[in-house]
Amino acid sequence: HTNSDRLWESLMEMAKLGATPKGGVNRQALTDLERQGRDLFIQWCRAEGCTIRIDNIGNIFARREGSDPNAKTVMAGSHLDSQPTGGKYDGCVGVLSGLEVIRTLNEHKIVTQSAVEVVAWTNEEGCRFPPCMMGSGVFSGVLEFDAMLARTDAEGVTVSDALDAIHYRGSDTVSPDEIKAYFEPHIEQGPILEDTDTTIGVVIGGLGQKWFDLTLTGLEAHAGPTPMNLRRDAMMGAAEVTQALNRIAFDHQPHGRGTVGCMSLYPGSRNVIPGQVKMTLDMRHWEPEALIAMGQAVTNAVEDICQRHGLEYELTPTADFAPEHFNQECVDAVRQAAEKLQLSHMNIISGAGHDAMFVGRVAPAAMIFIPCKDGISHNEIESAKPEHVHAGCNVLLHAMLEAAGV
Amino acid sequence: HTNSDRLWESLMEMAKLGATPKGGVNRQALTDLERQGRDLFIQWCRAEGCTIRIDNIGNIFARREGSDPNAKTVMAGSHLDSQPTGGKYDGCVGVLSGLEVIRTLNEHKIVTQSAVEVVAWTNEEGCRFPPCMMGSGVFSGVLEFDAMLARTDAEGVTVSDALDAIHYRGSDTVSPDEIKAYFEPHIEQGPILEDTDTTIGVVIGGLGQKWFDLTLTGLEAHAGPTPMNLRRDAMMGAAEVTQALNRIAFDHQPHGRGTVGCMSLYPGSRNVIPGQVKMTLDMRHWEPEALIAMGQAVTNAVEDICQRHGLEYELTPTADFAPEHFNQECVDAVRQAAEKLQLSHMNIISGAGHDAMFVGRVAPAAMIFIPCKDGISHNEIESAKPEHVHAGCNVLLHAMLEAAGV
Ligand SMILES: NC(=O)NCCC(=O)O
Ligand SMILES: NC(=O)NCCC(=O)O
Repeated sequence: HTNSDRLWESLMEMAKLGATPKGGVNRQALTDLERQGRDLFIQWCRAEGCTIRIDNIGNIFARREGSDPNAKTVMAGSHLDSQPTGGKYDGCVGVLSGLEVIRTLNEHKIVTQSAVEVVAWTNEEGCRFPPCMMGSGVFSGVLEFDAMLARTDAEGVTVSDALDAIHYRGSDTVSPDEIKAYFEPHIEQGPILEDTDTTIGVVIGGLGQKWFDLTLTGLEAHAGPTPMNLRRDAMMGAAEVTQALNRIAFDHQPHGRGTVGCMSLYPGSRNVIPGQVKMTLDMRHWEPEALIAMGQAVTNAVEDICQRHGLEYELTPTADFAPEHFNQECVDAVRQAAEKLQLSHMNIISGAGHDAMFVGRVAPAAMIFIPCKDGISHNEIESAKPEHVHAGCNVLLHAMLEAAGV
Repeated sequence: HTNSDRLWESLMEMAKLGATPKGGVNRQALTDLERQGRDLFIQWCRAEGCTIRIDNIGNIFARREGSDPNAKTVMAGSHLDSQPTGGKYDGCVGVLSGLEVIRTLNEHKIVTQSAVEVVAWTNEEGCRFPPCMMGSGVFSGVLEFDAMLARTDAEGVTVSDALDAIHYRGSDTVSPDEIKAYFEPHIEQGPILEDTDTTIGVVIGGLGQKWFDLTLTGLEAHAGPTPMNLRRDAMMGAAEVTQALNRIAFDHQPHGRGTVGCMSLYPGSRNVIPGQVKMTLDMRHWEPEALIAMGQAVTNAVEDICQRHGLEYELTPTADFAPEHFNQECVDAVRQAAEKLQLSHMNIISGAGHDAMFVGRVAPAAMIFIPCKDGISHNEIESAKPEHVHAGCNVLLHAMLEAAGV
């Protein structure tokens, strides 16, 4: 068994870096605060005798050797970066649970056949430098290295410069081929485990995502003298697109999701009919055909709505990830670990994107979810119970031991 | 007949003050640029022998005496201030047409029985200091003087300080009781005259207005892991309110108007379900009962939508003006002038608020509309034809002569 107090103390110690007054964390990717988090993680790993590798996008790998130098490695990890108004658990639970597994192995002098390795992926959140899951995306070849180095934050700083500034542009080469199994513990970031009073989510995969930017252009005009039937009101179009997106998501239950998270009206005056609206569409589904159908349905709806309201539109895809089905053996290892530990568990599909979903494209992978309070994440009030964090870490330990061989 | 070239030259001269690169005007109320516009107007009026009065809110009255000192005055006017991205015609057409009438009377040495007076109302646009039609509102007792003096712009400057800064806090008392008839020429700011190829709109009154601020509050959550049926998505509510508002306006044709001009989503991230949406509602109608019914219908719709989506709401009225029916004799004077001049004309209802609508509550008033290009106003591309400006001015001359007596 892992040490619950030790894991919790490390989590709280890490949470001091970038701690916000409201009890959250602001430790965005490749900032000096995140550099301090990386340094602390490496210091803890070195204290456990691990060797450290850092690759060209700043991913950190901390390795505890196994008895068989020819065996592939069993890996655990997640990320240390946070949202600007993030919580203590998103990411750190995965990285520090991996560390706790190594500490436990050392404490009990357990020799594994495979090496055991903990990874902290660079820039999972993507809030400072879009897109999200950059480090695991480059590692797994989903995202193009040179293009990612050139990405900039709001101040125009590139990923390349930011890596140099914190001295985390590494030269080690780590290949997906080295990985026998990758496990990522994470808070659920949704309400299902809490609602069903379940401790462990056996994550069988993650929803595919289609993101769009949509610009609707009509004609700006005075709200008073312009009769309803002569309007080309971009906001009328935006309202209908929002409703269509939601209806399409509801038509594809239980897995469909549809969200309008951003909307800007121009000129944005209370007595001017908006001549232009810019908005974002986020669609998700578990079945590839359903996701494609949803994308097609929303495209058709936009076309139809714009025709009826005399609007022009530009619909630009900004992300398109297929659903990820995790490796059956890895998923089974998680389930069996939960059963062995007599923890309540259920199969669950991740609604959010995670590093494991990119790693899973090039190596066997799975995830372990634990409940978070009210399903709230990406929020300073994000909260998880010590016993759930501990349970997730124990499941990780057993799944890794099963994969690594003792 | 008035002098078309002289009027146009004055319009273009005035448009130099605050001229924008795109051919519009930025001459916001009580700025130094607007002070220059006021000075120029007064200089032109003095050159015509007018006496100037300035009241406590900065309204400027330029008077040409009549033969009968006991007769009430016949007034024309509008405003010199503009929107930040305004045009050359909105407001100035009214003020400078009034000036052109006086120039014409002088030129032809016409003695009127009533005095003829031109007024430039302070802060009609309300964009720097809300609300709009401040000067005529204070003049007619619709808006409270002390409250208006305390209104601030985005920098925190009060109307009181801004009046002092440009030396336009006057001490003259001008009473609505002095007015026999008030006429306001203005561009239509809508498409009807242009669409029907009509030169003169005989404005019989103006739509009543109800403005609301609406805040919808749900629960911010991650767009991926949160199932559709567990959401409290404020944007879903906002989309339905927008549609309800439009439907209610369409249900009250031909006079109903409904516009959502502003909308802000919080936190405004593409993969976060909006926990809060703030939006504005602008509703208008010609019949008082219909306007009340529209306000009630939208209130009911908001209540119902929020119940269905688990949202809380705050619906705050920010403006509530009853429809204004202009004085029958003033309206008839405008129509008869147009007929006499053999100008195509039609009855029209103003969809926008105008100074005449506040003046009309305390004195006989009417308006003269002329077409503007594509019905576009509050925009740097606002445009009107010289022959239409001239036609409106001639109608004004004849209506004023009719009212003033020769
Ligand atoms: N885990 C997580 O918050 N990922 C961000 C990308 C997403 O929206 O799913
Ligand atoms: N004429 C004009 O633009 N008035 C502003 C107030 C309104 O929205 O009607």
